[in-house]
Amino acid sequence: MLGDRLENVRKVGPLVHNITNYVTVNDVANVLLACGGSPIMSDEPEDVEDITSICGGLNINIGTLNQSSIKGMFIAGKKANELGHMVLLDPVGAGASALRTNTAVGLMEKIRFTAIRGNISEIKTLTSGSGTTKGVDADVADAVTEDTLDQAIAFVKGFAKASGSIVAVTGAIDLVSDGDTCYVIRNGRPEMGRITGTGCQLSGLMTAFLVANPDNLLEGAAAAVCTMGLAGEIGWDNMQPGDGNSTYRNRIIDAIFNMDKAVLDKGAKYELR
Amino acid sequence: MLGDRLENVRKVGPLVHNITNYVTVNDVANVLLACGGSPIMSDEPEDVEDITSICGGLNINIGTLNQSSIKGMFIAGKKANELGHMVLLDPVGAGASALRTNTAVGLMEKIRFTAIRGNISEIKTLTSGSGTTKGVDADVADAVTEDTLDQAIAFVKGFAKASGSIVAVTGAIDLVSDGDTCYVIRNGRPEMGRITGTGCQLSGLMTAFLVANPDNLLEGAAAAVCTMGLAGEIGWDNMQPGDGNSTYRNRIIDAIFNMDKAVLDKGAKYELR
Amino acid sequence: MLGDRLENVRKVGPLVHNITNYVTVNDVANVLLACGGSPIMSDEPEDVEDITSICGGLNINIGTLNQSSIKGMFIAGKKANELGHMVLLDPVGAGASALRTNTAVGLMEKIRFTAIRGNISEIKTLTSGSGTTKGVDADVADAVTEDTLDQAIAFVKGFAKASGSIVAVTGAIDLVSDGDTCYVIRNGRPEMGRITGTGCQLSGLMTAFLVANPDNLLEGAAAAVCTMGLAGEIGWDNMQPGDGNSTYRNRIIDAIFNMDKAVLDKGAKYELR
Repeated sequence: MLGDRLENVRKVGPLVHNITNYVTVNDVANVLLACGGSPIMSDEPEDVEDITSICGGLNINIGTLNQSSIKGMFIAGKKANELGHMVLLDPVGAGASALRTNTAVGLMEKIRFTAIRGNISEIKTLTSGSGTTKGVDADVADAVTEDTLDQAIAFVKGFAKASGSIVAVTGAIDLVSDGDTCYVIRNGRPEMGRITGTGCQLSGLMTAFLVANPDNLLEGAAAAVCTMGLAGEIGWDNMQPGDGNSTYRNRIIDAIFNMDKAVLDKGAKYELR
Repeated sequence: MLGDRLENVRKVGPLVHNITNYVTVNDVANVLLACGGSPIMSDEPEDVEDITSICGGLNINIGTLNQSSIKGMFIAGKKANELGHMVLLDPVGAGASALRTNTAVGLMEKIRFTAIRGNISEIKTLTSGSGTTKGVDADVADAVTEDTLDQAIAFVKGFAKASGSIVAVTGAIDLVSDGDTCYVIRNGRPEMGRITGTGCQLSGLMTAFLVANPDNLLEGAAAAVCTMGLAGEIGWDNMQPGDGNSTYRNRIIDAIFNMDKAVLDKGAKYELR
Repeated sequence: MLGDRLENVRKVGPLVHNITNYVTVNDVANVLLACGGSPIMSDEPEDVEDITSICGGLNINIGTLNQSSIKGMFIAGKKANELGHMVLLDPVGAGASALRTNTAVGLMEKIRFTAIRGNISEIKTLTSGSGTTKGVDADVADAVTEDTLDQAIAFVKGFAKASGSIVAVTGAIDLVSDGDTCYVIRNGRPEMGRITGTGCQLSGLMTAFLVANPDNLLEGAAAAVCTMGLAGEIGWDNMQPGDGNSTYRNRIIDAIFNMDKAVLDKGAKYELR
């Protein structure tokens, strides 16, 4: 059950090294603390080997990449691979610039990722080397809908098999696959798109779930996606008149802080394909 | 009417490229989402041309400038000019350091800005090359008050004419001018100065309003100022006992999220001079 | 009385230059505004001398140090020393990487710090050149408890005497000493550890208290620690069902915003040793 995966996070208390963008970094840190993990941030090339060595997982997010942090990503990823740590890639904006696309593709060539999480446009870019990303949001033409679901599942399974990573494509419907099985997840709210960084937060959260669930990574990754989506639903239910996206952000993190096994097991909406 | 300007933002959904400081960047992103736009952040010189190309506007804020991001500002600004995009300058702390003053002045020499937004001390620095900025806040001696209003209007009109940009000087009284007309705006609350980044947020917001209102830039810029100030009033009205500046920050962004044409038209307090 | 120290901050309105990490920088800025100070952030080597010159205090936090910001720390620290400004060191993650340890130790060699604030593992690292820091949190084996209190007080007094700085070691029990006297402070809540950056916030706050209380630095530093801890208690008392760590963050800053002399004097829990 997915609830056990959350419980494992709370028991293990994973320390996660994040090389992540400065836009949403504070929320990523607070989400990691909310789920029972601990965050540490470091992107300086000379610092990252030591930092990643004391952690259990590494979350690489290219959202505000620069020449120095790109070096840090490669060094930290290599070290994490050597140590057998969990490593996640969040290719923010891949497809929106050559540097982002090339960095993401280059990272995939040099580093074994336990998981890759992005929106459908970003993930498509990784497979083709080009994409139609609208900034950091998925292109409407790419969206996973009930109509395109079968095709999308086949795509995600295929990419997971080809890359050797768990692939999580998140959007209105979320897909998480290891190449054989695909979780089709229907948690979440459309209003989550009106908050910056729910994707980045999920990448941090998923890294913690991977670290705490080494014996069942796919279920761990899926549990992270359900936790985030369910928190979006609970957070929305707690909205008061006059509340907007800024308060919604707080309520989602609060919902993760308060979530337990029973709530997650009851609220998770998924099917296996 | 100003409310139509807000409605246009919600219809168009402008994608705004922000090269902005890491202090308030998350709030800038959430304000852009609150008003109906989308944010993307990128300051790496190798990344900014591609990113600004897919956007409709560019918001340059020098709040935590460094050698690399300064290069990014010039490259992105040039590209945005080539593409005919809206470009806004927020000269945070101009007058407080030579590097900030010189960077702001240099940017004005090389890049055509659709709008320039700052406090009165920062804007005075841009005209004279020196100033008495107290950190990132305006100097008391510079403040726009009812007593100094005529003089301040003349100054803002003059600077708008000389620079060819819409100039927005914000403070207790806000002035927005294209050189001919000046909006004198009396929305807002003094307590907004106890939150970090309301100026930065307004710069992001204004960029979105410019992108969505190309046929009437002055009214678009003024509408952004009224939206921010009115949100400050509504947010304050929603404060509960025990709330302070951190909650106030959320309530202001929430108020923008919930604002519509009717609320803005009713609440905007301005005169034309 | 400690309340007078807070009142002085509100009267003086200290401008504090922060070279701090991008994870918690927004909260540091809002805490400074909450207590009555003003923040300015700048880490670019070419910018920091000018910026620190217009401030009253400098807060150096190595949480996301990089090669450029490290240079900025040394330059700003030297200038602040020349000007006789208050300078505080927050050695985030010292012991977790060689770069962090060496940077913190190097800063202590070149710069006279008015105060040094960290968790017990970080501070132990500064005295020995090595430590067992678990990321950015203190190691359990190092924790200051009632059982190890006498020993910890002796350690903090000794390090304060040796370094010539006020030393503040914060954790379940907080210790603040100038080498002769040690404040043993029992404010705060364990749940504060589930929010990112309460330590960073305290460092910003403490710098403002030092600037506003030059005639009694030790009491100023202790008052900052009590203010933060008491805000944690008040913030927790204000929590509603469904609230979690994200809302708790806001409520703590709100509590500082609303705190006055009487509240602090009544709520501060300390003894002198």
